Amino acid sequence: MAQKVKTAITPTREEDYPEWYQQIVKAADMADRSPVRGCMVIKPWGYAIWENIQRELDEMFKASGVKNAYFPLFIPLSFLEKEAEHVEGFAKECAVVTHHRLEKGEKGGLVPGGALTEPLVVRPTSETIIGDSFSKWVSSYRDLPLLINQWANVVRWEMRTRIFLRTSEFLWQEGHTAHATAAEAQERTSMMLAVYARMAEQYLAIPVLQGRKSPAERFPGAVDTQCIEAMMQDRKALQAGTSHFLGQNFAKGSNIRFQSAEEKEEFAWTTSWGVSTRLIGGLIMTHSDDDGLILPPRVAPAHVVLLPIVHKEEERAKVMAYTDALAEELGRVVYSGRPLRVEVDKREIGGARGWDWIKKGVPLRIEIGPRDIANDAVFFGRRDKAHKEKTAMPRAQFVQQAGTLLDEIQGNLLQRAAAFRTAHSQPIDDRNAFYAYFTPKNQEKPEIHGGFAMAHWCGNDACEAKIKEDLTVTIRCIPFDNPKEAGRCICCGAPSQERVVFAKAY
Amino acid sequence: MAQKVKTAITPTREEDYPEWYQQIVKAADMADRSPVRGCMVIKPWGYAIWENIQRELDEMFKASGVKNAYFPLFIPLSFLEKEAEHVEGFAKECAVVTHHRLEKGEKGGLVPGGALTEPLVVRPTSETIIGDSFSKWVSSYRDLPLLINQWANVVRWEMRTRIFLRTSEFLWQEGHTAHATAAEAQERTSMMLAVYARMAEQYLAIPVLQGRKSPAERFPGAVDTQCIEAMMQDRKALQAGTSHFLGQNFAKGSNIRFQSAEEKEEFAWTTSWGVSTRLIGGLIMTHSDDDGLILPPRVAPAHVVLLPIVHKEEERAKVMAYTDALAEELGRVVYSGRPLRVEVDKREIGGARGWDWIKKGVPLRIEIGPRDIANDAVFFGRRDKAHKEKTAMPRAQFVQQAGTLLDEIQGNLLQRAAAFRTAHSQPIDDRNAFYAYFTPKNQEKPEIHGGFAMAHWCGNDACEAKIKEDLTVTIRCIPFDNPKEAGRCICCGAPSQERVVFAKAY
Repeated sequence: MAQKVKTAITPTREEDYPEWYQQIVKAADMADRSPVRGCMVIKPWGYAIWENIQRELDEMFKASGVKNAYFPLFIPLSFLEKEAEHVEGFAKECAVVTHHRLEKGEKGGLVPGGALTEPLVVRPTSETIIGDSFSKWVSSYRDLPLLINQWANVVRWEMRTRIFLRTSEFLWQEGHTAHATAAEAQERTSMMLAVYARMAEQYLAIPVLQGRKSPAERFPGAVDTQCIEAMMQDRKALQAGTSHFLGQNFAKGSNIRFQSAEEKEEFAWTTSWGVSTRLIGGLIMTHSDDDGLILPPRVAPAHVVLLPIVHKEEERAKVMAYTDALAEELGRVVYSGRPLRVEVDKREIGGARGWDWIKKGVPLRIEIGPRDIANDAVFFGRRDKAHKEKTAMPRAQFVQQAGTLLDEIQGNLLQRAAAFRTAHSQPIDDRNAFYAYFTPKNQEKPEIHGGFAMAHWCGNDACEAKIKEDLTVTIRCIPFDNPKEAGRCICCGAPSQERVVFAKAY
Repeated sequence: MAQKVKTAITPTREEDYPEWYQQIVKAADMADRSPVRGCMVIKPWGYAIWENIQRELDEMFKASGVKNAYFPLFIPLSFLEKEAEHVEGFAKECAVVTHHRLEKGEKGGLVPGGALTEPLVVRPTSETIIGDSFSKWVSSYRDLPLLINQWANVVRWEMRTRIFLRTSEFLWQEGHTAHATAAEAQERTSMMLAVYARMAEQYLAIPVLQGRKSPAERFPGAVDTQCIEAMMQDRKALQAGTSHFLGQNFAKGSNIRFQSAEEKEEFAWTTSWGVSTRLIGGLIMTHSDDDGLILPPRVAPAHVVLLPIVHKEEERAKVMAYTDALAEELGRVVYSGRPLRVEVDKREIGGARGWDWIKKGVPLRIEIGPRDIANDAVFFGRRDKAHKEKTAMPRAQFVQQAGTLLDEIQGNLLQRAAAFRTAHSQPIDDRNAFYAYFTPKNQEKPEIHGGFAMAHWCGNDACEAKIKEDLTVTIRCIPFDNPKEAGRCICCGAPSQERVVFAKAY
């Protein structure tokens, strides 16, 4: 029996993947469950990742002409009902405000008072309330395109929640645009999906498939839903972002009309697109290992942590001064267009201190002792390598190469994740093989199955539903770059022109 | 009779101040009323001001050691009840969530379904829900101080709303800190008030009084409430930010305990502090004139707008190329630590175009015609001067001095506002004079009264209440820099040691 390697996180991924995930969140001090059912508390380390994601996305949005605005948290029930499929899609999981004050109840405690004449729904998404504004802001083709984004909290009353991945309240951005033509709206839908793919791959180091959803998986009310899909380390898919072409459905519901250049009254064509704090869950499940979180440098709250080591009291002043000077020097380095983020941890808690930063996923850890100072060297570990593997480097060289090192780590993480996905993706043409691929070999580890299967599908809702029922496997997307290829539906055997991606999903 | 000057905004401040305010918001395209009672839609121009405020404040918070986090939108009713004065203060204006889905009602339409066992209140402020987290995060004096901020939306169901100033939902930040000693918590309370004063004066160009509230005006549950108070152009006060020393009240309610260095179990000392989108209302009412909004450069969404003027079609290409080149050159200028924000407006709508930017309050407007190009000169107007007053300056000089010009405008606005406040503030020692000061001379313009009165107050709640009832005048603050001075209470004549600031307020 092989000796078990001691890991910082218990259980390991292999022992119990869902519990490992919760333990990573805890060990990296990213978030807490809250006393409010299904809601989370995002702690500073988790929130700082979100701030970095926000800042990068916000710049990308603005560079594409989008402006930020803010719309009400509450949506009158009658607004939600303006688009039939839409309200159907969200009715089962809405927080509903029915009263506007608290008053003394019969038993002395406070009870809701001041009943509202029309209940208000806490926004699960804002198409209908933003549509109302758009209907007022748009009157001529000259007012188009209208390109708006909001950073906001939304609420979907989920029955089974998991921190960052599925919570009753979460943070997101929702973009909403209106255009004079279908083609322009479709172009914007694709453009924003490309922004999301860039965010996922270049910043979060998460490789993603880009494609469109099958009709059954579309956003309620959309004509076309495009998505980015990532593979987690348990081989399940995570929908990491969606961009919807809404046709004229919501414009008709909200009465967004304009006078065209030809002086005709027309309905606008709209889009909506969003990503959320779920991306943080995706980041965790893509990169982390059994020692804790591993952060892609471009969104890491800290790029490097300095750990001064004092053995003898008479060395303290010198070690601390050297540490502070190095921190300051590193803080002047520019990485990915921004100042390097440097943490200094002067606590004296021995080995636990180093492990804290490993568990928090900081890309570079530097230990500073008298010997390093004497050599004017930097002794550092990289979070993408084993924790014992450490390197000494002349200080000046380290400062000069810090950005390169971080780029290397960023690149490694993406490459590793891409290799993992490749290893667990395969084309399947045989129905039995397909069922076997998604059937766990070991009943004690139901999460271990094949991964992504690229299989033919006839386009029929019934086949999709059958596979979902049998295997809890769904069509994640129909990739954009799919080659056209004759084949037979993996479910019913009818002719098919292309493969789609099947997977279990979060 | 003097000839009436035509203004861009109707009515003028003098004609109808409250309506003038609404018209400024509309003319500058900052916000809309929404179909949801008391909620506002913040449009891109208004939201960009908020983003600028956020960015500057966020940097100041972080520089003082504060970290951002995020807590649930919903507060269980039982949490709110943990601090008796606190729940009393907010019970009358709470949005209450009582159901978690919508279902088909008897008449066929949707109605609230899935009643919650405990109602949830949409946060009016987060002391109690954040206190719950703090109680889990703090166990030793080593965990203190805990310095947390969140950027969030909050809801207070106001009966009489006014856009930006008092709305049912608004955006704000709320800082919450916990400390080992009262002195440390008091120091943090003052430190954050100083941050707000710096924001108001250095960025928003709003001069503020700094002081503490009388007991009657304190935040519900606080031991000490400190505030910054500004004077609007109708001479009314606007409370622009507050910082509260909460003593151990909330720590006891939420059970935030720690083991001290002496190994004693103690309750922590907490603070909270916040500013909101109300600051935008304050900015409007401090600086704007009868031609529209006037923006302090440091928070302006655009510092300069370029308006190319094409008289003859053959000149178009040349004018546009010059405009684009100048925009690019100006975009490389650094102002107040950030790139200059430049807008280019190429619409051809004659005089209306220039007026649009005056109404939007952009500090510098540049008109670019063939003559300016020939002279390599910039012909510009400043929003802090009359709209007809325009200056020509060699292009290179303008680019070099743009930052200086903006600093001048920023300084002028602050100075002007300070002069206005001085002109409408006075010490008053006589009770009749005090009542006369706050009694409108003209019943048709009830808003025109004296302004700020510095008067003696005995410290008695009853005197404060009497003045509030008689005049709707409240004690805005007891200024920190108050000289000790013997006098007699303006209401009852009892001895008093210092003056307080009385005013009507928003």
